[in-house]
Amino acid sequence: MSTAPAPSTAAAFDLAAGFRAAAVACGLRSGDGHDLTLIASDRAASAAGVFTTNRVQAAPVLYDREVLARDPAAIRAVIANAGCANACTGEPGMAATRRTAALVAAAIGCTPEQVLVLSTGVIGRALDMAKVERGIAALAAAQATRDGVAAGGLGAERGGAAAARAIMTTDTRPKTAAEDVTIDGRTIAIRGMAKGAGMIHPHMATMLSVLTTDAAIAPGALQTALAAAVKRSFNRVSVDGDMSTNDTVLLLASGASGVTPAGAALESFTAALTRVSTSLARQIARDGEGATRLVTIAVTGARDETEAHTVADSIARSPLVKTAIHGGDPNWGRVLCAAGYSGAAIDPQRLSLAFGEGPRAIMLVKAGLPLAFDAAAASALLELDPVIIRLDLGLGAAEATVWTCDLSAEYVAINAHYTT
Amino acid sequence: MSTAPAPSTAAAFDLAAGFRAAAVACGLRSGDGHDLTLIASDRAASAAGVFTTNRVQAAPVLYDREVLARDPAAIRAVIANAGCANACTGEPGMAATRRTAALVAAAIGCTPEQVLVLSTGVIGRALDMAKVERGIAALAAAQATRDGVAAGGLGAERGGAAAARAIMTTDTRPKTAAEDVTIDGRTIAIRGMAKGAGMIHPHMATMLSVLTTDAAIAPGALQTALAAAVKRSFNRVSVDGDMSTNDTVLLLASGASGVTPAGAALESFTAALTRVSTSLARQIARDGEGATRLVTIAVTGARDETEAHTVADSIARSPLVKTAIHGGDPNWGRVLCAAGYSGAAIDPQRLSLAFGEGPRAIMLVKAGLPLAFDAAAASALLELDPVIIRLDLGLGAAEATVWTCDLSAEYVAINAHYTT
Repeated sequence: MSTAPAPSTAAAFDLAAGFRAAAVACGLRSGDGHDLTLIASDRAASAAGVFTTNRVQAAPVLYDREVLARDPAAIRAVIANAGCANACTGEPGMAATRRTAALVAAAIGCTPEQVLVLSTGVIGRALDMAKVERGIAALAAAQATRDGVAAGGLGAERGGAAAARAIMTTDTRPKTAAEDVTIDGRTIAIRGMAKGAGMIHPHMATMLSVLTTDAAIAPGALQTALAAAVKRSFNRVSVDGDMSTNDTVLLLASGASGVTPAGAALESFTAALTRVSTSLARQIARDGEGATRLVTIAVTGARDETEAHTVADSIARSPLVKTAIHGGDPNWGRVLCAAGYSGAAIDPQRLSLAFGEGPRAIMLVKAGLPLAFDAAAASALLELDPVIIRLDLGLGAAEATVWTCDLSAEYVAINAHYTT
Repeated sequence: MSTAPAPSTAAAFDLAAGFRAAAVACGLRSGDGHDLTLIASDRAASAAGVFTTNRVQAAPVLYDREVLARDPAAIRAVIANAGCANACTGEPGMAATRRTAALVAAAIGCTPEQVLVLSTGVIGRALDMAKVERGIAALAAAQATRDGVAAGGLGAERGGAAAARAIMTTDTRPKTAAEDVTIDGRTIAIRGMAKGAGMIHPHMATMLSVLTTDAAIAPGALQTALAAAVKRSFNRVSVDGDMSTNDTVLLLASGASGVTPAGAALESFTAALTRVSTSLARQIARDGEGATRLVTIAVTGARDETEAHTVADSIARSPLVKTAIHGGDPNWGRVLCAAGYSGAAIDPQRLSLAFGEGPRAIMLVKAGLPLAFDAAAASALLELDPVIIRLDLGLGAAEATVWTCDLSAEYVAINAHYTT
């Protein structure tokens, strides 16, 4: 088997075979952008999901968990809205989610238990069901026929590129990734789209992603593959350390390719899924609110991968590290300091730190002792996109990489005002 | 016994009886401010200390732990410098700390094991021992005689107010607090000074505090009292979630009052020490880098105090909460979201949230359900100083309060540039 890059530019993006997408502007969010998207599967698809671990979970998260626990082998649609998170809305919020699923089910001809729901937006406000109902009618019309695009109204558009744009909020660009995996001469497609940190009127750094494949994979194996991919991709991103009530990653497998990867081929599929997810995760970090560049924190020499991740995450979350990067200030003490309070095992005498990679890399600390360095050259490395920070703990062979962004005054400006 | 407020304005501040302070400008930091201060005890004082739990600890932290482990009953001096943290400096850094203690010991006539050392400033740079040596000579001369103030040079000043100013870095104001406790008709003094977040050229949010009392208390009881006070004061402050390599709180007891509190009187002393420490902690939060107001996060109804603290701390660390407060945006979903990812037990159906206190307080969420509220009035509550946010978990009777500040674009500006 082999893997190959596939078209991943946002404009050319589409879902894997067996899935159809459409998007409309039903007025859930201010402005006139698309805010409701429907991804439908021609046949019953396998599905897997990974959800926020926040104890305060939005209604659609609670609902989707129920759906996948009941029957993850017969999913027919995903409906996603922006503009309202439907979180902290109690039982009325759950009723709105169930009603949304029922409307989609009636429109495309399946049961509500075959419909997954995603929401992102303002917390604590009720979903406007009149707008959702009009939106779903337009989406169903647009998906049913080419003519339906015009007939359905609400600015309906078809295709994955439209769907990827419709889930955007304060994202400045759509996020898509694609890869093809060839197994015994036959090709499986993996297509992913995601939205990242923020909203048009930001209240949450909600992360949503829908991954589709035309492989035929049973739900159990699909969940295992998704969990492995998420662990090293979406779970390695930090924009501001705030974990949303709505974070959701869904993976749907249509089986349209007729290929069922198993054994080494399934590992190959998982590896490709991880690369697609990693591409989306990096796009989310790069497009963090107010971000001017991607920051890669690579921790090596840890006793185990969990500790490597803990240290990298602590550095990625440090406002002092992120502001120093924003200012191009090679203020490396802040990196060691954040490693020190991460909770992971650290021996200060064994720490080695470098900025950048390749011939321009600069070693700042070796085995715990600071080295003389060219401050201007180190500063220049912090102006690159991506910025690369490499910390070796000197304790073992495990490693982990976390992606984040710089922290700018624009982040504060974006997040300081909304309802007033 | 009874307690009484005592003069705590910074200008009138002095240490408890039995201690003398002086400060000089020896050139360790840029500008011409005082940067080296000596607190000397006429007799052997009892001492207690609480230190950063960062695994990367500055040389003076490691050194002070040694000193207090060896003999905490015979401390004669604390020497504190700003401008250089002496952290991540390896064995040469430890040698510089030992040399500093030896210079003080020689100057005032004690052993190096009777001298504690505090440092705050840039990480990873060597302490300039020539400047420290000149500074200590000037401090000793200034403390020995009134004439010595002029003779010692380096702008020497005597007294607690000068010492409180000399440990400032990017602090915009000195931080002092005082309380008198009357026991059986005799009075014990508790005097505290602290520095908070940031430096003239900020690299760390180092927190240092020196508390003095003229009570006669043995080291063991002193450590118990300090640990109890720190738990509910300094350990309840978050400016940016970055824990320094240098954080240190010292408590010295001279015994000059001749009063040894025991039993209920010792509890009374501990309560007063906690109030002094809490005053300093609130001053640190209020004067956080770029802060425009103090924020009080009060969590009630927790199963235990640790969980209450965990939830309050998570809210206090959330950049989304802190930017919303800065902008006066009553964006309460972010508060519940931060509570949800704190790791503590949360039942979303039992959460109740209010802004403010007293007649102007506004209830936003009751038993998990959002309430209609006057957005302009809620916004006005976020413009007050302090801002008060109250979250009831509805699970028990335990509570905890954490103090933080709003997050402004000025924080980013302060922290984005230094060496370039």
